[in-house]
Amino acid sequence: MFNLPQALKRLVIGRAMRSEELGETLLPKRLALPIFASDPLSSVAYATGEILLVLTVGGTAFLYLTPWVAAGVIGLMAVVVMSYRQVVHAYPSGGGSYEVVSRNLGANSGLVVAASLLVDYVMTVAVSVASGVDNIISAFGSLAEHRVALAVGFVALLTAMNLRGVRESGRAFAAPTYLFIGGILLMVVTGLVRLAFGDNPQAPTAALGVAALDGKDSLQGLGLLMLGLRAFASGCTALTGVEAISNGVPAFRAPKSRNAAATMAVMGIVAVVMFAGVTLLALTSHVHYVEDACRLTGLAGDCHSYTQQTVIAQLAATVFGGSDTILFYFIQAVTALVLILAANTAFNGFPLLASILAQHRYLPRQMHTRGDRLAFSNGIIALAVVAGGLLWFYQADVTSLIHLYILGVFTSFTLSQIGMVRHWNRALATETDAAVRASARRSRLINGLGAVTTALVLVIVLITKFTQGAWLAVVAALLLWLTMRGIRRHYDTVAAELAVEDVAAESSRPRRVHAVVLVSKLHKPTLRALGYAEAFRPDTVEAVTVDVEPEATAELRAAWEGSGLDVPLRVLASPFREITKPVVAHVRELKADRPGDAVAVFIPEYVVGRWWENLLHNQSALWLKSRLLFTPGVMVISVPWQLTSANRADRPARRAPGAVRRGEP
Amino acid sequence: MFNLPQALKRLVIGRAMRSEELGETLLPKRLALPIFASDPLSSVAYATGEILLVLTVGGTAFLYLTPWVAAGVIGLMAVVVMSYRQVVHAYPSGGGSYEVVSRNLGANSGLVVAASLLVDYVMTVAVSVASGVDNIISAFGSLAEHRVALAVGFVALLTAMNLRGVRESGRAFAAPTYLFIGGILLMVVTGLVRLAFGDNPQAPTAALGVAALDGKDSLQGLGLLMLGLRAFASGCTALTGVEAISNGVPAFRAPKSRNAAATMAVMGIVAVVMFAGVTLLALTSHVHYVEDACRLTGLAGDCHSYTQQTVIAQLAATVFGGSDTILFYFIQAVTALVLILAANTAFNGFPLLASILAQHRYLPRQMHTRGDRLAFSNGIIALAVVAGGLLWFYQADVTSLIHLYILGVFTSFTLSQIGMVRHWNRALATETDAAVRASARRSRLINGLGAVTTALVLVIVLITKFTQGAWLAVVAALLLWLTMRGIRRHYDTVAAELAVEDVAAESSRPRRVHAVVLVSKLHKPTLRALGYAEAFRPDTVEAVTVDVEPEATAELRAAWEGSGLDVPLRVLASPFREITKPVVAHVRELKADRPGDAVAVFIPEYVVGRWWENLLHNQSALWLKSRLLFTPGVMVISVPWQLTSANRADRPARRAPGAVRRGEP
Repeated sequence: MFNLPQALKRLVIGRAMRSEELGETLLPKRLALPIFASDPLSSVAYATGEILLVLTVGGTAFLYLTPWVAAGVIGLMAVVVMSYRQVVHAYPSGGGSYEVVSRNLGANSGLVVAASLLVDYVMTVAVSVASGVDNIISAFGSLAEHRVALAVGFVALLTAMNLRGVRESGRAFAAPTYLFIGGILLMVVTGLVRLAFGDNPQAPTAALGVAALDGKDSLQGLGLLMLGLRAFASGCTALTGVEAISNGVPAFRAPKSRNAAATMAVMGIVAVVMFAGVTLLALTSHVHYVEDACRLTGLAGDCHSYTQQTVIAQLAATVFGGSDTILFYFIQAVTALVLILAANTAFNGFPLLASILAQHRYLPRQMHTRGDRLAFSNGIIALAVVAGGLLWFYQADVTSLIHLYILGVFTSFTLSQIGMVRHWNRALATETDAAVRASARRSRLINGLGAVTTALVLVIVLITKFTQGAWLAVVAALLLWLTMRGIRRHYDTVAAELAVEDVAAESSRPRRVHAVVLVSKLHKPTLRALGYAEAFRPDTVEAVTVDVEPEATAELRAAWEGSGLDVPLRVLASPFREITKPVVAHVRELKADRPGDAVAVFIPEYVVGRWWENLLHNQSALWLKSRLLFTPGVMVISVPWQLTSANRADRPARRAPGAVRRGEP
Repeated sequence: MFNLPQALKRLVIGRAMRSEELGETLLPKRLALPIFASDPLSSVAYATGEILLVLTVGGTAFLYLTPWVAAGVIGLMAVVVMSYRQVVHAYPSGGGSYEVVSRNLGANSGLVVAASLLVDYVMTVAVSVASGVDNIISAFGSLAEHRVALAVGFVALLTAMNLRGVRESGRAFAAPTYLFIGGILLMVVTGLVRLAFGDNPQAPTAALGVAALDGKDSLQGLGLLMLGLRAFASGCTALTGVEAISNGVPAFRAPKSRNAAATMAVMGIVAVVMFAGVTLLALTSHVHYVEDACRLTGLAGDCHSYTQQTVIAQLAATVFGGSDTILFYFIQAVTALVLILAANTAFNGFPLLASILAQHRYLPRQMHTRGDRLAFSNGIIALAVVAGGLLWFYQADVTSLIHLYILGVFTSFTLSQIGMVRHWNRALATETDAAVRASARRSRLINGLGAVTTALVLVIVLITKFTQGAWLAVVAALLLWLTMRGIRRHYDTVAAELAVEDVAAESSRPRRVHAVVLVSKLHKPTLRALGYAEAFRPDTVEAVTVDVEPEATAELRAAWEGSGLDVPLRVLASPFREITKPVVAHVRELKADRPGDAVAVFIPEYVVGRWWENLLHNQSALWLKSRLLFTPGVMVISVPWQLTSANRADRPARRAPGAVRRGEP
């Protein structure tokens, strides 16, 4: 028979996969690049814009700083990529920064990294989706009013795609990423060629003036330095996601480490070329991009209804000759697509990290269990909910979201590079082979440079971004850190409480078992419960009812006496017309009179097939059961009575194992 | 030890009461009047205003209709009160209109009445509270912006008071109701005496003009008739709640019927005198009261920021010499208080009716169970939630809410009077005693008159109010009616399915019992579950684990083999890394191989004391259990392991019965 919810689930999630299929989902480099590198590559779409936003506070006076800021970002990118290539080789198990730091700097530091990364994965989804929607709106201005709905819709779409599993994601994402790389490079090359031939096309906003913020038009000394540093901190968004490959090494085909490191190098080079090219074009074509459109002078209409095009959109329109050309729409389409899909980096990384944390008992065990599609469904859903909430709260505004973003990235960069330095120190302490020692020394030098550089950037980001929203990311990471420590402490306490030292000594069997069968009416479920209770051959059996309504009780008593049942019926008084308390009190009394024995309470339960039927049945049974379990020496036995409607809900579990795999509904 | 939640519950709800105390909570007439009559009496506060609202559509031109409309309402009130006195005598069990109609016109008609009454109880709460807040704002204009918050706050307060139980409600409500009656009568008498001495004080709004609605200033013929009928329909709000006494007869002291009928007569006379007096004063003092303040001409300030005083407030200011006199504040205070408390009529009636309906299996059984304070907690809470929602949705606007109101009242009035006519017809068919026959004939005449009159009003209300919001009440009642029929059909089907004809023939005991103990680790809860399973002496015992993580499974297998346990451990393969499906499949296979036997699945469960700990434990156990219960012949045994924290949550149930009564926390 056709089962609509199941069919829908299969349609969205795809067929279930066996554990052995895990091998088949491993990624070749050409698929791994788009999956793991879509985040750092796509940040080309907003990093230049974020630098320009900061530098235009003094009108166009400080745009001359742009090349220096961009050079700083590119240098940093090179250092970080080189550093993480060391991580990939040294720790191929995919814990990434979390593993590096936990092993080398201790569990608490590792947990700091984990908390930062979890927050940053969420921010990656939010920022990438928001920027993607921005680029769609740059092409289709009339969609501006649906910004938030579009953003949340894309998060929902990504969630569904990721619940389908790793490999399919890789295929779905490969084409757009490669088209994006190709498109941006085509745009950069076209622009540079036109420039080389003396043709310097100007951006649509080049003719607009920019009003300086009060007193910001003549910064000098420290003020100028701060401005440059703020622009640099904003430009560092280009580095977000670089560490994703180091967290995803196990998803690569063998030789895993070498393939991952090679992919990382390719990604770094491509990212640098694209970022440099876009920034250069933005300067030569005089793109003017400000935080508040009302600071633009010379606008034709009302500034409040004016939607600024993104930097990429302005460049595409400039280089390809207008915002109605096919190539303009192509660039916007692939940019938007790659940004939306960049969020996928986080959808790959977050659940993997959450699962590792759950394995280490820092998160609830549910996070550790894989869903039936090899993806870690719970983690995916948690990520989608939080990111969607942020997009809704910040109205999908890229700049607001970016303030919350890069702090965590650089926290984990810095800690993991420090951890790597300690890693090489340890290796060098025992290693004797000269060639290996030389290699380790070189690696230590790279990671040392990485540690110093990223620590410096972390300080810059903290100083320039904290009051603009980064504090929220700090608070979120701190709360996560405390929660994870709390969960671990809880699991540790419980494990200690439950540990068995000597099985023989700690095993015990109750001397006798007393069965109590709860009865409300004399009907089939009651007879079944009585039959099951007697089948166990307990030492005593009694039926118990609670006298809530005297008439009903009298009726039951009469029916019982007329029935010929040999089990005695005990009526419990209930002065407060409650069911739970008298039963619990009676059971505790039984137990107290017979230490060393066990009391088994048989509760007839209705099994129904429709959710609302549960509202009409079993409410007292559920509550009663939860109270009875508090008494040591008492067990609760649910004796189900399947109502006809139960067949409706029973189908999924009734199918043979493997049916799902064969695509049966 | 001190238990804050329990202590708070006791503070708000009061101590629990025994069933035998029910007798003590029965009401003498002097307490029954304020409880059941606060609704019809308090409607004096808005009925006159609603008539004036309608009649001012043509400026002040049609105010001359007011006495005629008021006379119609008064006549109707007399007929309805007389009719319901017959109901109280004939049906003293408190089902009121529902019982009368069910018995005489059949179950489906009875259910129509029940649905109408449930909707009207909700509306009573909403309208009374909204009007009460209106009167508070008439005295303290600055509270106007907190209208909705005040209204919802009062609903919450009433809910808490009613959860404390019947008698205390009576005491809390007696003083305000009597003060309200006294205050209004004092105001009417003072006004009439001043009038008699030739002193005719004018209302604050008497000097303001009223602009007619377009084309409404010269109505004639049918238009004039419709206006009069609309005003009459609005004035009929004065009759809401008259039936409350007939639903509450069991709460009276013996002789119940006679006391209830006497109370009803007193209520009718008081209501008529107050309504007539207020309407008379409103006419002589020229109160101008309109739906939209911007239709008042001659206002000093902006009409949008002008808050109209209620009719009662204007009269109090007029008669007692200004809206800063002590008597003005006294009238406003008692009016507001009695209106808020009028909602209490519904808090008395709704849960009682819901409980009767639950007893007849038209509503879930939970509604039938009394809370631990003799009040029907579930019904009270349902009522409060819906009424609060309406107040929020309609921004606590009295007139909007009133459109939804009286339709249901007159549906049940009409049906119950028709039912009473049939009741007397039946009585007359068998009765031979001449005196009794004469009395029955007289009663039949009264109820016949009532039926005709209320049916006429029902038609008027339908015509004049349907498009203004009454349709919503019709839809709500219809949905309720369908839901209740559905619930009854469900319970009937289930009862038929479960009925036992021959206990001996239908009793059966499984031949053998096979125990399956679910194991994840070898720890204390596992050992306890094994011990309990063996204590039952089942025919076979096996331990079962699911191979989700191969390392964990290998570890468990090694520990098991080293432990010396004589129960075999079976490892179930789980290609999809799921726990539920392999276990369910295994249990079904066991069961299928052994028809006539029973399978007992022992699941170790953690009992924890903090709600969030449940998120960290038992998730798979819960899900597994719900799936296992679908298989006939399988029972599920929860073997609890009480973690240390469980003690926290165990206190309430651990106390001896009666402790609550002694006020122990």
